[in-house]
Amino acid sequence: MTKPVQTAVVGVTGYAGAELARLLLRHPRLKGVPPVFAGRIDEKDAARGGVPLAEIHPELGSSNGAGQVKLQPFAWELLAARGVEVLFLATPHEQSREWAPEALKRGMRVIDLSGAWRLAEPPNRAIYGFADEGTELARTTQAEAVYGMPELHRGKIAGARLVANPGCYATSIILAVKPLVAAGLVDVEHGIICDSKSGVSGAGKAPTAKTHFMYAADNLSAYGVFHHRHTGEMLEQIGVHSGELVFTPHLLPIPRGILSTIYVRFREPQTRERMVAIYREFFIASPMVRIYDKVLPQIQYSLRTGYADIGIQVSADGRRAVIVSCLDNLLKGASSQAVQNLNVMQGWCEQEGLE
Amino acid sequence: MTKPVQTAVVGVTGYAGAELARLLLRHPRLKGVPPVFAGRIDEKDAARGGVPLAEIHPELGSSNGAGQVKLQPFAWELLAARGVEVLFLATPHEQSREWAPEALKRGMRVIDLSGAWRLAEPPNRAIYGFADEGTELARTTQAEAVYGMPELHRGKIAGARLVANPGCYATSIILAVKPLVAAGLVDVEHGIICDSKSGVSGAGKAPTAKTHFMYAADNLSAYGVFHHRHTGEMLEQIGVHSGELVFTPHLLPIPRGILSTIYVRFREPQTRERMVAIYREFFIASPMVRIYDKVLPQIQYSLRTGYADIGIQVSADGRRAVIVSCLDNLLKGASSQAVQNLNVMQGWCEQEGLE
Amino acid sequence: MTKPVQTAVVGVTGYAGAELARLLLRHPRLKGVPPVFAGRIDEKDAARGGVPLAEIHPELGSSNGAGQVKLQPFAWELLAARGVEVLFLATPHEQSREWAPEALKRGMRVIDLSGAWRLAEPPNRAIYGFADEGTELARTTQAEAVYGMPELHRGKIAGARLVANPGCYATSIILAVKPLVAAGLVDVEHGIICDSKSGVSGAGKAPTAKTHFMYAADNLSAYGVFHHRHTGEMLEQIGVHSGELVFTPHLLPIPRGILSTIYVRFREPQTRERMVAIYREFFIASPMVRIYDKVLPQIQYSLRTGYADIGIQVSADGRRAVIVSCLDNLLKGASSQAVQNLNVMQGWCEQEGLE
Amino acid sequence: MTKPVQTAVVGVTGYAGAELARLLLRHPRLKGVPPVFAGRIDEKDAARGGVPLAEIHPELGSSNGAGQVKLQPFAWELLAARGVEVLFLATPHEQSREWAPEALKRGMRVIDLSGAWRLAEPPNRAIYGFADEGTELARTTQAEAVYGMPELHRGKIAGARLVANPGCYATSIILAVKPLVAAGLVDVEHGIICDSKSGVSGAGKAPTAKTHFMYAADNLSAYGVFHHRHTGEMLEQIGVHSGELVFTPHLLPIPRGILSTIYVRFREPQTRERMVAIYREFFIASPMVRIYDKVLPQIQYSLRTGYADIGIQVSADGRRAVIVSCLDNLLKGASSQAVQNLNVMQGWCEQEGLE
Repeated sequence: MTKPVQTAVVGVTGYAGAELARLLLRHPRLKGVPPVFAGRIDEKDAARGGVPLAEIHPELGSSNGAGQVKLQPFAWELLAARGVEVLFLATPHEQSREWAPEALKRGMRVIDLSGAWRLAEPPNRAIYGFADEGTELARTTQAEAVYGMPELHRGKIAGARLVANPGCYATSIILAVKPLVAAGLVDVEHGIICDSKSGVSGAGKAPTAKTHFMYAADNLSAYGVFHHRHTGEMLEQIGVHSGELVFTPHLLPIPRGILSTIYVRFREPQTRERMVAIYREFFIASPMVRIYDKVLPQIQYSLRTGYADIGIQVSADGRRAVIVSCLDNLLKGASSQAVQNLNVMQGWCEQEGLE
Repeated sequence: MTKPVQTAVVGVTGYAGAELARLLLRHPRLKGVPPVFAGRIDEKDAARGGVPLAEIHPELGSSNGAGQVKLQPFAWELLAARGVEVLFLATPHEQSREWAPEALKRGMRVIDLSGAWRLAEPPNRAIYGFADEGTELARTTQAEAVYGMPELHRGKIAGARLVANPGCYATSIILAVKPLVAAGLVDVEHGIICDSKSGVSGAGKAPTAKTHFMYAADNLSAYGVFHHRHTGEMLEQIGVHSGELVFTPHLLPIPRGILSTIYVRFREPQTRERMVAIYREFFIASPMVRIYDKVLPQIQYSLRTGYADIGIQVSADGRRAVIVSCLDNLLKGASSQAVQNLNVMQGWCEQEGLE
Repeated sequence: MTKPVQTAVVGVTGYAGAELARLLLRHPRLKGVPPVFAGRIDEKDAARGGVPLAEIHPELGSSNGAGQVKLQPFAWELLAARGVEVLFLATPHEQSREWAPEALKRGMRVIDLSGAWRLAEPPNRAIYGFADEGTELARTTQAEAVYGMPELHRGKIAGARLVANPGCYATSIILAVKPLVAAGLVDVEHGIICDSKSGVSGAGKAPTAKTHFMYAADNLSAYGVFHHRHTGEMLEQIGVHSGELVFTPHLLPIPRGILSTIYVRFREPQTRERMVAIYREFFIASPMVRIYDKVLPQIQYSLRTGYADIGIQVSADGRRAVIVSCLDNLLKGASSQAVQNLNVMQGWCEQEGLE
Repeated sequence: MTKPVQTAVVGVTGYAGAELARLLLRHPRLKGVPPVFAGRIDEKDAARGGVPLAEIHPELGSSNGAGQVKLQPFAWELLAARGVEVLFLATPHEQSREWAPEALKRGMRVIDLSGAWRLAEPPNRAIYGFADEGTELARTTQAEAVYGMPELHRGKIAGARLVANPGCYATSIILAVKPLVAAGLVDVEHGIICDSKSGVSGAGKAPTAKTHFMYAADNLSAYGVFHHRHTGEMLEQIGVHSGELVFTPHLLPIPRGILSTIYVRFREPQTRERMVAIYREFFIASPMVRIYDKVLPQIQYSLRTGYADIGIQVSADGRRAVIVSCLDNLLKGASSQAVQNLNVMQGWCEQEGLE
């Protein structure tokens, strides 16, 4: 048995952070070595030794030992004193740009859940407007980063010092499109149309006009048409040009879950049976992807699980396909994928702690 | 036919304000005299003559002439120039405390939708902490105020200069309890238990932790137990002491609507049939209250209407009753009741523009 | 002023029927001539002269005179005795196939809300499996039918004896696509991708596994991929072949409203400004279509209105467009469009009774 | 370590059954001895050796081994052949009345999730109208039954052959009221008012008018006023007379969760602090009850957990209290309580498999 690893989480106050805490606290390989939770907290809370997680996320409650675990004031010294080896950053991307290099310098391995280090191509990064773009430190850090989708990059993740955990929309689309493009079946120049719908947790915990119940409930709205910042990840990972993929996200009136409906045209006519076989082959070693055969996945099926669910229908003439891809944006779209990366980095079973 | 009246609305940006605009713009007696909409707007918008209402509330859209009507920068001179006779204040209570006396001084009649002038008894007002409490101006203004529930105070409202439009919870409870208490049937010392549930619009338009979709959806929570500020209105209007009424509001995961479940004990055993008859008699001249006989009202029945719906069940031994009272918090709980008050003040049919 | 017209409605018990009743009861041109509501009712109800509409749809309540109006037992003699001139059929398509010819024979004009008479091409009708397909009566009846979308067929509807009211999904897509295709701008062979999302009322009032709250809530599911029966209407009205349009409907966890996201490729690069101008020109005489310029429409904007809302975004290279089209499936997708057709048939203003 | 026990579940197709399957399949003490799932299935499915659970409940998916486990055709011989020792009945109460005695006769211990055996007093049972009421078999079976609320009857459950798992509403109310009544603090004659709100899963899986999305969504309705069949359980377990407790259930527009708001009057003035202490003392050995101190519980906190959450507020004069009690109706209100009972019957930790 491998020796236990000391983890730390920065950014546990958000929705993805809460799920990450829940997963790590019950992870069978981390029994007895709960993560260090660190972040900005006020003086009064610091004085009482931190804020119990159960006060921040009452739904974590007394389960999982969350009642005992505390969010402590962040300090690099704290991490050092506790011997942290793997640092999860569930922080805004600006903060991850600063902290990831520092953590690497201090000898930690980093799993970053933000968009800070996902993009290799400068034009794709432009939409984020990183303040440190072009600096030497940014360049060398980016050069180390591995895109944290185990289904595509398992080998590199195993040895990576910096893993850039994918975006939620990007995960739902890349997993569904990559197998067909990799097999050379898709008429890529024709265009890949990705129509995605996400629950409100994807918009974050900050109260805004768009996350107000009155805005989201009994509604559906498209946003970020032709310029959502997850598009770059899709282009780089699928391997297509910017004119070849259209991505439209929509805000669903539900707390969580993503369903992407994807439209492709084939170079040659295909059958559904062959497509299902291709997906199954592609994901044969990937325990967190489920391929549906007779029915299409729905949001409810993958909700509160770490699975990405994929189903496909082919038109009568075999020329077009509609692919439906579902996942829980806070899990396979964020926290459980981060744990999957931890598992790969540690050489554990990829699905450990996720079923 | 009476001469048309020039109205104005301050505070049209909130939910109740939007409903008030919609009702007034289509009110048959106000054809050709659209309200003046005034409020704080920035310089750029002022420079273009104000903000079209349809930009603030897209759902008002091109209907009702809202596309043409604009929110203008507030100034007392504007109201004077336009000859405003009746001023609706859909403003926070602090602002209504300042503006209502000023409007009265300038000769306007005021319908105030806030909690500023509803309460006659100083202890009941304490919870609001009015800055001007105890001043001469506050005292004389309060002395003029009439509680704007036409079903109880139709006569006084007709001649009032200042009408204090009731709270949404208070409306749902007072209308349901008053007829039985007035008839001397309720064992008041025993206690009147009022368990209310309201949609999220009741919490206002400001994005807060409580109005975040993730907080409200798939949830139910009680709040303000034993100290909600609408309680004072209920005590004063029903005519009971503070130990005799318990009120617990809950936040429902729906956009709008209130259902109050009310528990009373009778002095003498009663029948459902007699209770229904008493309600019908009490509201015989009240077109905006509907008494249900065989079924109980539900939130959906009064949604997007100006009605208060009331139903009652009596226990087998005739000693206790459960009363169910429903209304739309933005309409009978706010804006349509304000229009009802306008109708009464102008001598029009009480339900004009509300069906 | 034109003389009032006597209407009748069969099928008032469903969701679209309820909305139709509400619209007709408050229609300014039908003041004093309420529709005859007829349908199958049991003997006990027949004995008391029919069922008050307010018992079937409590939300119609005492408003609109619905309390007084009754659903009567259907008989052709009843319609004759009441001098019905225009008959609305809000019935299943099998029933409309039988009743529309009979009503025409008896001299009535018919507005049929079902899918019975919408499709001119036999292959498009095949999916319905009409029992009378190929009979002489079916052929001559179909020959009379006009597709009831006033924005496209105003002239023919005016004189039609049988108007086939469009499907809800079809309306949302045809209105959004037709102007660009008619202008010859769309690369039709490339394919038109239509990704639609509808509220649960579109699935009808019958309790089924799919309309159960537990199935629909907190969920999103695609269905009828590559074979939804509204596709034929789109092909015929837009004028494209079956391989050129892909339509995927989804079930949204909301009561009502449709949003369609439509993807097209242009023959030549275009600008958003030009596209908006083309839409505005196309719908210049169509009061029930609203073209959005700066923002995209959302489901909430057209909810409970008779409008179809259309917005467009064009890609940076001008080659592709995403069109967002919203409407209320029970109104512009069913009942208000039927009233629009009535208005056109009677020579009234098209928007009469709809704003 | 105790030897593993062979369990069986009848009635796995419903919502509670699905949760029970999920809990048992991952129960640490049942590793390697998955339950036998048996029920009525058609011939074709029987011919293929049963229906995989994952086909019935896709959300169970490939997790928990549910993909491998099958629902088999029910036969007493099957249970005997598999050596079933503990039988869970998640069946309608009529079926449980028949099957529980038969299972006892065959030497199995039974945990019945229906209302069949919960009520000791004939008048409280009358509402169910049991066909076998008054027979010798019914009498002797009832005499064996223990009310399956471990917090009250842990000792008896340990040795019971027939455990009657409590109703969901009853659990939420009994746990919240019993400690105060047992301590003699409540003025019982005054009346205990229980206002409960439940998600739609409580209404069962059968599609009905009330479980239709259009009925439940954006709505709230009271039902069963003064005669809900869970009332008898509350009276018997709390130990009050029928005039002393009023229970009103409401249908919430959410999938799952119950919140009960309970109103009591004290014999002598009390403080919140003392009440919290009394609850903590009462539940000191009960790991599945959480007492809240500073905040009140909400539905979200206990959702998808096996906890019952209780909070209390006391009026300023100390005479009245409002108690808020929350739980997941499918877990602590049904399946996790059944597993808790299994744990007690087997002498395992009460919370085993529930955290």
